[in-house]
Amino acid sequence: MSSKTRAGNFFEDFYVGQELIHATPRTVTEGDVALYTALFGSRFALNSSTPFAQTLGLERAPLDSMLTFHIVFGKTVPDISLNAIANLGYANGRFGQPVYPGDTITTRSSVIGLRQNRDGKTGVVYVRSVGSNQHHQMVVEYTRWVMVRKKNLEAPAPEPVIPTLVEAVDVADLHVPYALTPGSYDIDLAGSPYLWEDYEVGERIDHVDGITIEEAEHMMAARLYQNTARVHFNQHVEREGRFGRRIIYGGHIISLARALSFNGLANALSIAAINGGRHTNPTFAGDTIYAWSEILAQQPLPDRTDLGALRVRTVALKDHSASDFLYQDSAGNYDPAVVLDVDYTVLMPRRTS
Amino acid sequence: MSSKTRAGNFFEDFYVGQELIHATPRTVTEGDVALYTALFGSRFALNSSTPFAQTLGLERAPLDSMLTFHIVFGKTVPDISLNAIANLGYANGRFGQPVYPGDTITTRSSVIGLRQNRDGKTGVVYVRSVGSNQHHQMVVEYTRWVMVRKKNLEAPAPEPVIPTLVEAVDVADLHVPYALTPGSYDIDLAGSPYLWEDYEVGERIDHVDGITIEEAEHMMAARLYQNTARVHFNQHVEREGRFGRRIIYGGHIISLARALSFNGLANALSIAAINGGRHTNPTFAGDTIYAWSEILAQQPLPDRTDLGALRVRTVALKDHSASDFLYQDSAGNYDPAVVLDVDYTVLMPRRTS
Amino acid sequence: MSSKTRAGNFFEDFYVGQELIHATPRTVTEGDVALYTALFGSRFALNSSTPFAQTLGLERAPLDSMLTFHIVFGKTVPDISLNAIANLGYANGRFGQPVYPGDTITTRSSVIGLRQNRDGKTGVVYVRSVGSNQHHQMVVEYTRWVMVRKKNLEAPAPEPVIPTLVEAVDVADLHVPYALTPGSYDIDLAGSPYLWEDYEVGERIDHVDGITIEEAEHMMAARLYQNTARVHFNQHVEREGRFGRRIIYGGHIISLARALSFNGLANALSIAAINGGRHTNPTFAGDTIYAWSEILAQQPLPDRTDLGALRVRTVALKDHSASDFLYQDSAGNYDPAVVLDVDYTVLMPRRTS
Repeated sequence: MSSKTRAGNFFEDFYVGQELIHATPRTVTEGDVALYTALFGSRFALNSSTPFAQTLGLERAPLDSMLTFHIVFGKTVPDISLNAIANLGYANGRFGQPVYPGDTITTRSSVIGLRQNRDGKTGVVYVRSVGSNQHHQMVVEYTRWVMVRKKNLEAPAPEPVIPTLVEAVDVADLHVPYALTPGSYDIDLAGSPYLWEDYEVGERIDHVDGITIEEAEHMMAARLYQNTARVHFNQHVEREGRFGRRIIYGGHIISLARALSFNGLANALSIAAINGGRHTNPTFAGDTIYAWSEILAQQPLPDRTDLGALRVRTVALKDHSASDFLYQDSAGNYDPAVVLDVDYTVLMPRRTS
Repeated sequence: MSSKTRAGNFFEDFYVGQELIHATPRTVTEGDVALYTALFGSRFALNSSTPFAQTLGLERAPLDSMLTFHIVFGKTVPDISLNAIANLGYANGRFGQPVYPGDTITTRSSVIGLRQNRDGKTGVVYVRSVGSNQHHQMVVEYTRWVMVRKKNLEAPAPEPVIPTLVEAVDVADLHVPYALTPGSYDIDLAGSPYLWEDYEVGERIDHVDGITIEEAEHMMAARLYQNTARVHFNQHVEREGRFGRRIIYGGHIISLARALSFNGLANALSIAAINGGRHTNPTFAGDTIYAWSEILAQQPLPDRTDLGALRVRTVALKDHSASDFLYQDSAGNYDPAVVLDVDYTVLMPRRTS
Repeated sequence: MSSKTRAGNFFEDFYVGQELIHATPRTVTEGDVALYTALFGSRFALNSSTPFAQTLGLERAPLDSMLTFHIVFGKTVPDISLNAIANLGYANGRFGQPVYPGDTITTRSSVIGLRQNRDGKTGVVYVRSVGSNQHHQMVVEYTRWVMVRKKNLEAPAPEPVIPTLVEAVDVADLHVPYALTPGSYDIDLAGSPYLWEDYEVGERIDHVDGITIEEAEHMMAARLYQNTARVHFNQHVEREGRFGRRIIYGGHIISLARALSFNGLANALSIAAINGGRHTNPTFAGDTIYAWSEILAQQPLPDRTDLGALRVRTVALKDHSASDFLYQDSAGNYDPAVVLDVDYTVLMPRRTS
């Protein structure tokens, strides 16, 4: 039998300082953008209209931030998380150069931390992944940690290294690719009159709508990103698994929540940072996803009067309206309906724009 | 709680003469076209092949007429029909400049009529919607009337204004973007030898095939058009609703019927006008759609010998073959299998082309 | 009633030497490529990245070989196999000029053989189909034979003509569109260190993963190719049919198997020939497809040191892992889990590349 197939890395295969070049560079196209629209229904004008994007100083409509993220992330799966038990979290995610149709994305990762678990069968791997375009410009980078199986239980535990994780990306580190000339921003076309100054810290927004997910949709999305995680695709195996069915890629819920957030955050042009994120419960085909957001911080951008940053928590729920803002109990345990808790920073025009 | 989400307009929010600029301009792409092909399977050569389109005098393959319609229509939903109970009808629809990948579409609407219903809880809103490209050229315009809820039942009834609706778009008002040189039209590639002269008024055509619709398909289509009508997407709510399930966007059936009509009307290059249309019954995932057509009129085009117009009624049925041409009973009531009755005008090459 | 619909050809409508020009030329786009990626999840770098394709001497990323095949094949269905009972086999398939987004594909077929069956109700039709681009360059050509119904049972049996079918395309007849400069091939980006020299005749590779198919997926794929075979689309009719459900286009399984084969054959740049193929069992929505491959021959290419050819058998299974290489019993009967047996030739870089 051949040994040419790749079984993915196990915990003992990783070492701190390891550099991974992920396979399959990806030239993104207008086709990817159309599929993303069809799968999530996003209505942000920046990603929908080239003339609108040009009024913000871009050459044309860029990809939705999360489409870029998913393509970059998808490439890491065969090397990092094929043998993962759980995707534990994200931190310190920064978006860089906007991605346009025609750009080619590659991803590299560095192992920045390792900690074997007490059971001796698994360990936590911390990686920093960087997606770049064909000009070697960073398009998104983030830290992720996953729990990975050991294959050889006899392999010695590595020296534990746990990276320091910032609580949130500093505003000074945000990449701001837009330039607005006063009076140029069209709130009618953007879909909302509420700009950066109009939000308040602590304000909560019910994004109202709910979207039910079908098997064909989440599988097409994950394949579009060339994400190969087996739990999404193989009902023949998952039928016998813990849930009896295919599990939806967690990033699918982030994209749905972002699309739903248009109703209340229509001027949140793009995501500049992912400060942290957790998939608190699995989702399955047939689940209906709702979302609500809370404004965590309202941050001016250094030397900019045209745009500001809003730090936002968006919480996604399944089969439960977001109108009562379900979240955690007093002990900090998530309500069972909560499937996503993501803390991120968006860029939004100011009244002077 | 935030008041930044949009609840859509209620009947009392509309007034005659009101102008609405709809959000989210849309740069259409080859990706949209590919998805439309995958969702409906249309085989009209004009939309499928750039060299074929060029033999008709176009710069390249344009979007299918109905894809243009759906994108223009989708933009109106958040402002006009989010609180609608029923989409009552269409009339006086005209297609203008062909839309090409790369064009950016925006939609504006004018309220042209209002009539409160006797129950005092609802009213009918008549709007004229106009979709335009980036050169401010009309791509499609149509009149639509919908029954919309009142939110404030105390709001006074407006003075009733009911617009005059033409029975059919006049042939002199059709936009004809094609120019055929004699001998240039290739019936082999087009898929049928039957040209304008070959049809007879009263002739009925069974389009033979049936297509079953899946949930993933109609939701992807509606999201592609950025149509946000809630009944299409949210099974968690619709489970408790009148039908117990998501309702398919009526326009989906028009597109399926048009794709099916290739078998019998392959040389119907494009739709020039929608004279009137009614969704006579809702459709749901799992329904199989069939269609038949009747030629209502055979109209020469002023000063043109290369092309003529055919006015056609296409009737779509669910879970019933079109071979017996089900339609209405003698009292004019639709057979329960009829889901669509649309009267439209197509352009077709003449024998001299 | 109209006679303008096409019922497809019946056995007695074919004659040896008949030439068929198939309808609906197709300008392929980046949208088609994105859909193909979303439907099959292929990760071959050549089709995914324009810079990668350029290191192989191409102008940009070409379409996956099988996407080209399906588009060419789809056009033949209305004329050749609308009244087919069974698609009996393929042979002597050669891929020619790579297809790029923007190219326009047309298909012509010649009837090269006919043999009426003893029952007098059906016959076998052999056709040679050729897909070409807008420069009249062959993109793929193949021989296919199908069993087709007679409509008029009184029609006389034609003189039997059975074409000679080669067992495999000769290496000297392969079209090799790549040119590699030494040191230019990037195995990290390609996803595997195993090149042409590393494979051995008789080596078998379990491609490990399984993918479950949904109704929406296979129908969207078949419509993307404008394949009109009724059994794929109409549940209202198929409910009463032999299987009680829609049958998946056999080519869907070839595409899934090819995408799965990346894990073990990542450097198989493209398919140069289809030597033979059989769909040994029907597949349905809900089936999970696995695949394994065997290396049948390792063939140097005349005058080339940069690339070699591998002749490969890929076998697809439904609802059965490929780890035990299920195939035929000692009498040559296929295991019931086998759904596809395809013998084809791929091009792969050599160590000198």
